[in-house]
Amino acid sequence: MSDALRLPALDPASLPELRGSGYPEPYKSRMGDRVKRRLGPALGLTQFGVNLVRLGPGGQSALRHWHTHEEEFVYLLEGELVLRTDAGEQVLRAGDCAGYPAGNGDGHQLVNRGDSVAVYLEVGTRDDDDEAHYPDDDLLLRYQQVAQPDGGSRREMLPLHKDGRPY
Amino acid sequence: MSDALRLPALDPASLPELRGSGYPEPYKSRMGDRVKRRLGPALGLTQFGVNLVRLGPGGQSALRHWHTHEEEFVYLLEGELVLRTDAGEQVLRAGDCAGYPAGNGDGHQLVNRGDSVAVYLEVGTRDDDDEAHYPDDDLLLRYQQVAQPDGGSRREMLPLHKDGRPY
Repeated sequence: MSDALRLPALDPASLPELRGSGYPEPYKSRMGDRVKRRLGPALGLTQFGVNLVRLGPGGQSALRHWHTHEEEFVYLLEGELVLRTDAGEQVLRAGDCAGYPAGNGDGHQLVNRGDSVAVYLEVGTRDDDDEAHYPDDDLLLRYQQVAQPDGGSRREMLPLHKDGRPY
Repeated sequence: MSDALRLPALDPASLPELRGSGYPEPYKSRMGDRVKRRLGPALGLTQFGVNLVRLGPGGQSALRHWHTHEEEFVYLLEGELVLRTDAGEQVLRAGDCAGYPAGNGDGHQLVNRGDSVAVYLEVGTRDDDDEAHYPDDDLLLRYQQVAQPDGGSRREMLPLHKDGRPY
């Protein structure tokens, strides 16, 4: 990593570490030791998001889910993670990648079952019509535009039960 | 890297190495020792491309350019590269990243001036209205849909001189 990079370049270590999740409990706590750095907005990107994610032992990338409209890609930089999909489990190591086309109905999730930290890049497009579906949990995520004090609006998660009731 | 991964996961080493470039000469040869593996299509992704790129000493990521509609992101995995933009040059090392918002008019290029191989990930959205502009060279790239024998069509580069004459 380098000192004093200026845009359009960036040292991810210069960005704040974000913990937490937009999930309601009890799902939020399941994510465990998960820290994200949001590279995309810091670089001025708007068409897709890029996060550098550090997942400690026991941590989860997300609940197992699939997106109706948004496409995702992950590239494992360090450590070892278990990828869970409908077809079962497989172990990803540094240098491996995975991609999740939109709308295919196959939920995916990365879990750190080892004793070491894992680090990966995640890339995902943005689509306001997107819904995230969670085959193993009573959750359905939609997005909503929420008016902001500055007159603009911001996209926020709207977590629902599977029957449509809000959390 | 892992043996026998199955989709949605992939070991990039299982993909073919692609050399060459869609640029006309003399630009094509300038890219030097540049090898790409196309991860995005292999993973079934359509909303953005992802390449794993190996750039030998003297190699270039591209001619210095900017896109009117497409957004790009790069993450350096190994080695050291010089990023050239309107503001000058800066050195990126493993773990650094860069992002290029669409339409900002600031041409970018990565050059390997060292003695070692550099490896990076490049991510870019796709937009058929895109044009790539080359501030230092007599080149303008548009895209065209070319009919294929199977009845479909494929997006191909259409390289033009700056005055619009085809190469």
